Amino acid sequence: MTSKKVVELFYDVVSPYSWIGFEVMCRYRHAWNIELKLRPSFLGGIMKGSGNKPPGVISNKFMYMTKDLSRLSEYFDVPLQSPSDPFEAMFQKGSLSAMRFVTAVQAREKDGDKKVERVSRELWRRIWMEDKDITEPASFSEAAMKAGLSDSEIKEVLELYNSKEIKDKLKSSTQNALDHGAFGLPLVVCHVNGKPEVFFGSDRFELMAHCIGEKWLGPQPNQSAAKL
Amino acid sequence: MTSKKVVELFYDVVSPYSWIGFEVMCRYRHAWNIELKLRPSFLGGIMKGSGNKPPGVISNKFMYMTKDLSRLSEYFDVPLQSPSDPFEAMFQKGSLSAMRFVTAVQAREKDGDKKVERVSRELWRRIWMEDKDITEPASFSEAAMKAGLSDSEIKEVLELYNSKEIKDKLKSSTQNALDHGAFGLPLVVCHVNGKPEVFFGSDRFELMAHCIGEKWLGPQPNQSAAKL
Repeated sequence: MTSKKVVELFYDVVSPYSWIGFEVMCRYRHAWNIELKLRPSFLGGIMKGSGNKPPGVISNKFMYMTKDLSRLSEYFDVPLQSPSDPFEAMFQKGSLSAMRFVTAVQAREKDGDKKVERVSRELWRRIWMEDKDITEPASFSEAAMKAGLSDSEIKEVLELYNSKEIKDKLKSSTQNALDHGAFGLPLVVCHVNGKPEVFFGSDRFELMAHCIGEKWLGPQPNQSAAKL
Repeated sequence: MTSKKVVELFYDVVSPYSWIGFEVMCRYRHAWNIELKLRPSFLGGIMKGSGNKPPGVISNKFMYMTKDLSRLSEYFDVPLQSPSDPFEAMFQKGSLSAMRFVTAVQAREKDGDKKVERVSRELWRRIWMEDKDITEPASFSEAAMKAGLSDSEIKEVLELYNSKEIKDKLKSSTQNALDHGAFGLPLVVCHVNGKPEVFFGSDRFELMAHCIGEKWLGPQPNQSAAKL
C-alpha cells in the first residue's frame, strides 16, 4: 500500500542526453514504484534563465561528447546519431516550436501520457537519428503521424501549439525546472518524503535509485528483472 | 593467463571529482583484472591547454555541484567536505606545487605506488575535508608524514619537487592527458586491445566496466564481492 513516488522528468527533444534520460526513465516507470511525470521544457529558456552558456568550441570537449554519446547510445540502446551540423541544429535552429508542439500534445491528452511520450520520441528520432528538421509544421505533422495521432488530432494540435495557453504552459514548466535549480537538461526531480531530490544529466541513475530506495538494474530493467 | 589491462588515472588533488575517481579506481584495482597506473597531473595546465574555462559563477550550477558532491560523498564513502572558499582554493591558490610534490613522491618510489597513493589521499583530505592549505612546503611535509613517509624521505622529496626533472615530469603527464583529449580531470584511459578508451569525470564507471569487459559492482566492490 505504499504510495508511488512522483518523479518529474524535464526534457527537451533538442538535447541528446535528454533522450537517454527519457528512455531510461520510461523503462523504469514500471520497474520502480514511481509515477513518472513528463515535463516538456525549453532548453534555450533554461540556459538563459540560469545564465549558462552552451559549451563553446572546446575541441577536446566536443570530441569527447561525440564519443561519449556513441558509447552511451550502444550501452543504453538508444539509437543516437549526431546530426551533420549539431551546433546549427541545437543552438541556431533550436527547439522552441517543437517543444510548444509537444506541450500542446500533452495539453490535449486526457488519459495518460502515451501520445506525448511517442511524439517526443519521434521528434528525437528526427533530429538525433535521421538528421531531419524539427522546426517546421510539416515536420511536426510527420512526427505526430508516426506517433499514431489521427489527422484530426494533428490538425487540432497544429491549431493549438502557438496559442498563448500553450506558450504559457511551456514557460511555466521551464520556470519550474529553473526553480528546481536547472542549468541544462535533462533534469529529474524525485519527490522523496516531501523533499525534491534533483539530478542533472543522464549519469546519476544508480545514485538516483539509492536516493529513492530503489534498485538500479542497468540499462534494461525489464530484461534484468526477467533474468532475476 | 590473460594479461592485465592497463588503466591510467590522470588526476589532480585540487579536484573533488578526481578524489571520487581515485578512491573508486583504487578499490577496483583488485576487483578488476587491471593494472592501475596513477598519473598525477596539473588541472590548471589541462584547462589552459584545452582552452577550457573553469565553471563561471552560474549559481544553479554551483549549488548543484555542492549537492551532487555531498550525495556522491555519502554514496561512494569518500569523506568530501567543501572548503570554506572553494573558488579561492581551486582557482586562485591552485595545485601546481602540490602536484609537483606528488610527482616527486612518485619519482622516488621504486617499488609500487603505495606512497604516491597515500600522499595524494592526504592532500585531498587537507583541502577537501579539513579546509587546510595545500600550497606550502609545511603542508606537504605534514601530508607526507601522515602518509607514512620518514623524515629523511620527506626531506629528499622537498629538495626534489621544484627541480627541472620533476617540473618536466608533471608537464609531460599533463600533456599526455591533453593528448588523450582531456578538458578537465579526472580522466581514466583504459587500454583495450591496443586502443585507448577515454572516460572523463567520475560518472562512467558502469560504462567503463562494460567497455573493458568487467562487471560494475557498485561503490564498494570488495564488500559486494564478499556478498556474492
